[in-house]
Amino acid sequence: MAESQDVLLLKIKEQGDIVRKLKAAKESTEKQKRTQKFVYDLEEVDAYLSQFSYLSGYSPTKLDLDILNNLGQDLDFQKYKYIKRWWYHMRSFNESDINLFPLASSQNSFANLHKGSDRSLDEQIQEEVSKLLALKAQLGSEDAAPQKFVLKTPKGTRDYNPQQMTIRNNVLQKIIAVFKKHGAECIDTPVFELKEVLTGKYGEDSKLIYDLKDQGGEILALRYDLTVPLARYLAMSKINTLKRYHIAKVYRRDNPAMTRGRYREFYQCDFDIAGQYDPMVPDVECLKVVTEILDALDIGKYVLKVNHRRLLDGMFEACGVPVDKFRSTCSTVDKLDKSPWEDVRTEMINEKGISPDAADRIGEYVRLNGGAELANKLLKDEKLSKTKAAVEGLEGMKLLLNYCDILGISDKILFDLSLARGLDYYTGVIYEAVLTQPIKVGNEELTVGSIAGGGRYDNLVGMFDAKNKQVPCVGVSIGVERIFSVLESKLAAGDISVRTNEIDVYVASAQKNFLEERMKICAELWNAGIKTEQSYKKNPKMLNQLQHCEENGIPLAVILGESELKRGLVKIRNITTREEQEVPRANLVEELKTRINTLNVKEMNGSLLVNHLADEFKRKYKKDLRSNPCAMRRLQTAAERAKRTLSSSTEEKK
Amino acid sequence: MAESQDVLLLKIKEQGDIVRKLKAAKESTEKQKRTQKFVYDLEEVDAYLSQFSYLSGYSPTKLDLDILNNLGQDLDFQKYKYIKRWWYHMRSFNESDINLFPLASSQNSFANLHKGSDRSLDEQIQEEVSKLLALKAQLGSEDAAPQKFVLKTPKGTRDYNPQQMTIRNNVLQKIIAVFKKHGAECIDTPVFELKEVLTGKYGEDSKLIYDLKDQGGEILALRYDLTVPLARYLAMSKINTLKRYHIAKVYRRDNPAMTRGRYREFYQCDFDIAGQYDPMVPDVECLKVVTEILDALDIGKYVLKVNHRRLLDGMFEACGVPVDKFRSTCSTVDKLDKSPWEDVRTEMINEKGISPDAADRIGEYVRLNGGAELANKLLKDEKLSKTKAAVEGLEGMKLLLNYCDILGISDKILFDLSLARGLDYYTGVIYEAVLTQPIKVGNEELTVGSIAGGGRYDNLVGMFDAKNKQVPCVGVSIGVERIFSVLESKLAAGDISVRTNEIDVYVASAQKNFLEERMKICAELWNAGIKTEQSYKKNPKMLNQLQHCEENGIPLAVILGESELKRGLVKIRNITTREEQEVPRANLVEELKTRINTLNVKEMNGSLLVNHLADEFKRKYKKDLRSNPCAMRRLQTAAERAKRTLSSSTEEKK
Repeated sequence: MAESQDVLLLKIKEQGDIVRKLKAAKESTEKQKRTQKFVYDLEEVDAYLSQFSYLSGYSPTKLDLDILNNLGQDLDFQKYKYIKRWWYHMRSFNESDINLFPLASSQNSFANLHKGSDRSLDEQIQEEVSKLLALKAQLGSEDAAPQKFVLKTPKGTRDYNPQQMTIRNNVLQKIIAVFKKHGAECIDTPVFELKEVLTGKYGEDSKLIYDLKDQGGEILALRYDLTVPLARYLAMSKINTLKRYHIAKVYRRDNPAMTRGRYREFYQCDFDIAGQYDPMVPDVECLKVVTEILDALDIGKYVLKVNHRRLLDGMFEACGVPVDKFRSTCSTVDKLDKSPWEDVRTEMINEKGISPDAADRIGEYVRLNGGAELANKLLKDEKLSKTKAAVEGLEGMKLLLNYCDILGISDKILFDLSLARGLDYYTGVIYEAVLTQPIKVGNEELTVGSIAGGGRYDNLVGMFDAKNKQVPCVGVSIGVERIFSVLESKLAAGDISVRTNEIDVYVASAQKNFLEERMKICAELWNAGIKTEQSYKKNPKMLNQLQHCEENGIPLAVILGESELKRGLVKIRNITTREEQEVPRANLVEELKTRINTLNVKEMNGSLLVNHLADEFKRKYKKDLRSNPCAMRRLQTAAERAKRTLSSSTEEKK
Repeated sequence: MAESQDVLLLKIKEQGDIVRKLKAAKESTEKQKRTQKFVYDLEEVDAYLSQFSYLSGYSPTKLDLDILNNLGQDLDFQKYKYIKRWWYHMRSFNESDINLFPLASSQNSFANLHKGSDRSLDEQIQEEVSKLLALKAQLGSEDAAPQKFVLKTPKGTRDYNPQQMTIRNNVLQKIIAVFKKHGAECIDTPVFELKEVLTGKYGEDSKLIYDLKDQGGEILALRYDLTVPLARYLAMSKINTLKRYHIAKVYRRDNPAMTRGRYREFYQCDFDIAGQYDPMVPDVECLKVVTEILDALDIGKYVLKVNHRRLLDGMFEACGVPVDKFRSTCSTVDKLDKSPWEDVRTEMINEKGISPDAADRIGEYVRLNGGAELANKLLKDEKLSKTKAAVEGLEGMKLLLNYCDILGISDKILFDLSLARGLDYYTGVIYEAVLTQPIKVGNEELTVGSIAGGGRYDNLVGMFDAKNKQVPCVGVSIGVERIFSVLESKLAAGDISVRTNEIDVYVASAQKNFLEERMKICAELWNAGIKTEQSYKKNPKMLNQLQHCEENGIPLAVILGESELKRGLVKIRNITTREEQEVPRANLVEELKTRINTLNVKEMNGSLLVNHLADEFKRKYKKDLRSNPCAMRRLQTAAERAKRTLSSSTEEKK
């Protein structure tokens, strides 16, 4: 106990020094003139770099190079320990890596150091002060210190306000309906896993995993996706077949560009079919599920690109790429969706060590796309037809594309040899859905890239089984965050609107001392299942109450008045039309339910009502009109007339 | 980089030593005879204690005392570092603390050390081996090491399989319906917060917070409840009024007894009303919400106990308790729901330093419960009527109980002076719902304690505002995990059953080579919105397909046969009745939809159908039968006749 107290006090002292240093740096920055570009204050730089405890997680940019070149010679490494550590880290990169450093974004705090801006310092000071407060709090103070400095969600995360929740729930409900239509069951897993469950599954991305602190028990980390937990669940429960969907948040310590939908905490929406089945049957169902979801969400025209890992492997083999470079070449090919062939070719040759000849041969293949006829053509290709992996992949594609035809989705599918997909664990078919046109939002256009992706991964579950027993899996993940973002933008631009509550009736009073009467009515309506609310003030103003109804889209109000109540009556007001009608207090529930039903029927679209009428007709006369187009047309007319009648009857009532 | 590698290698070496030591201890335990009770192997004990890195989190039991007394003198502290650390920790407790050590549960690993059982060692070995693997994995191996040892969810967490998910979703849907009926909007917040947001809000429970590892950025921790995030959200968004519900998982590093519903990751279901309103109006709505939820869930008879923090404070003051001991006395009174008054009195006197006289006076109050008449009686109480806080509390209770009367829930409410509630931040009314009878599950009875709780907390939001601007709040949290547990037990005992998928139609074939035809039909049915599935095998056996339908509760099957298809027909089979009927292939969608609707109507309970018929009658004849009891009885009879007709008509068809 004493030991940890000392350590704590030491950390507090060190943290306090960091804070003081930053505050001093801030003062000195404010003195610097803006024209003094590219002059770096070593104290500042050292303080900035002190944030990075694990430099293997530090991703340098071209700005780091700039600073490296401008820091001058004879750096005092004794004094500037963090610069020293960073300097050695920078020295560990070779030429080719250095060429690949991206430009620093304008948000980059390092960038702000040399522009004389002290915004980054303010942020750093804020961050270091919070660390200091956190340490001090651990000293065991029971009383809560008021939060004076930091009121924000952690970096890369956000709250969902009621409007965002409504958008989110609407999207997820549509997706879940499709999953359920295909018979998927739902499961859930914990938000964290034992660290070793996640270790070694994500390749280079492993450094983006959120670890939990070692607090004396198991070593844990937050889940990075929903696929590895699925594999762990299948192996643990010794399940051989499962068709499941799982919708939950996952966690990645990205450096989020904070561009649309890039967060550290975000939803994944997965559908997977696990089990040993006949080839391509569950695979094509995944494609059908994707098309149904994207059609239901109706966000725009899309194409579903498909390819096959074995074909890619075969292609690389046929083009003369060494086996140990398959994955690395694959990840370069994956960049073709964002970069032109020239750049990808350059990276292949300069960074991945592929011969120009091989690169060119790859180039001839990856520009190809089409349908089943392409698969047939490639099966006759001189090189590919001699490569076992390529033939496997192509036969698989043929079968898949045939099934796509039978399911009627061929017009949405594109067999595209440039599709590679990032994750290493795919073993068969891979696919990705992209929108083909920008989305109109207000007066602007949003370009959204990929919105769904997946593939077959037969070897993952076996990693968790002591006897390496395999359970083949195929699945898809829907990129819902991007869809949320698009809809939130539309909301902001006024293209769509949402209601954040579902209240049908608001109980109001104009005069004083009606709280208890309003409460009685609320209780009666709640007990009858009517969605009701009232003001929490004893004597609210009439205008405020009506305004509340309008702002929240509440369609009906019950208005209490002394004289009406004496006559045993209350008023029902239609908020939209502003019509009011007196009804007996005793019949209030029934009167409200009728009006609510009417409002719902008016919202029913034409075909629902037609079907409803057809069902009623059949139930009564045992005859189904749906087989008779003439009768259906007459029904349609009747439906529209009914709707108009209902609308006018609501208006006529005074 | 090199530095962290060295540290890592060192940790691996140390961890390897721990593993080797444990394995050796295991060997030596297996040699010990069972009769050798109370002989402790110092190596074993040292190895066991090495698990606890932070002894401030270590909760000693009476067993620790036993071991302490039996370890003997002249302990070699140089050799047994962990025993030394524990020994000093044990010495830090005073007499009164020591008297409060609980008995060790039979699960306690320490307990097993002296019984010669090596089960705890196996667990420890497993745990230490996983830590070793985790460390080794960090060395940077890209290839995934097969998980040979650890296939489990973290301690205190669990997966939800499809049946558990169905139970869970049914419960949550009912709760959400009640929240929405009262006009609550939904929000969501991130799973972790900045550590300092959580620090200092939970009193002693702060040590149960899950911290995230410091990975060079912000210091984070997993949320402990949904109330503090709400307060942070309100302050951050500068919102003054909000009625919101939030359903999400929270995280507490409890030492879970793993008794029903005690987990480290568990759901909270919160409803809160924030805003400056007139007294007790939103507070009574929270009580109404609780009663509606518990009635809807129908798990058993319950009572909703209410009390008031100010009354408790006033009571303590009137009984002569010093102000600085109010909270501490309060937490002792809180134990009255589990312990008898004698024990609580003893704790008050011996541990909390309350005089016997004051304790007795408190005892006279806390045994009281009742309704509004009790509040009136206490307002005339000699001591309480002179204490400002007590009068405040009692006036508040009077008003609240009056409103409960108006809302018609008085029969569920009990004004109970022994109710204290754990959390420090309550400032006004507090309440807790408990089931009054055990629940029958199979042949057993389950005792479930508290299933909902909450209160008013006016000072929490102000802690997050720079200017301490207050937003008064009142809310309730529903203890859904206990409800899930009860229902899962009922499921296991066969009292209830659930369907885990919603499929209505299964497409089957008896003969070979019908996969493509089945796929065509599936596509047609999916496109028509019918929930459909088929086998993923090309040539499945008929018996397996029908068995699948029965096991999963799928009501209908479409059976393809070569001869039928030649005649343009397919068979529809009712899985329950086993009746089959041939229908034209061209009319398949319509035929299936009719049958599905029929099945749904049959499931409609009597009153729904009656209402449906009454609505139809009214729409046609503009007359509402609901005001006419005679007519309603006739309608009821008609509804039941209709149901019987529908059932028999389905059976008649051949």
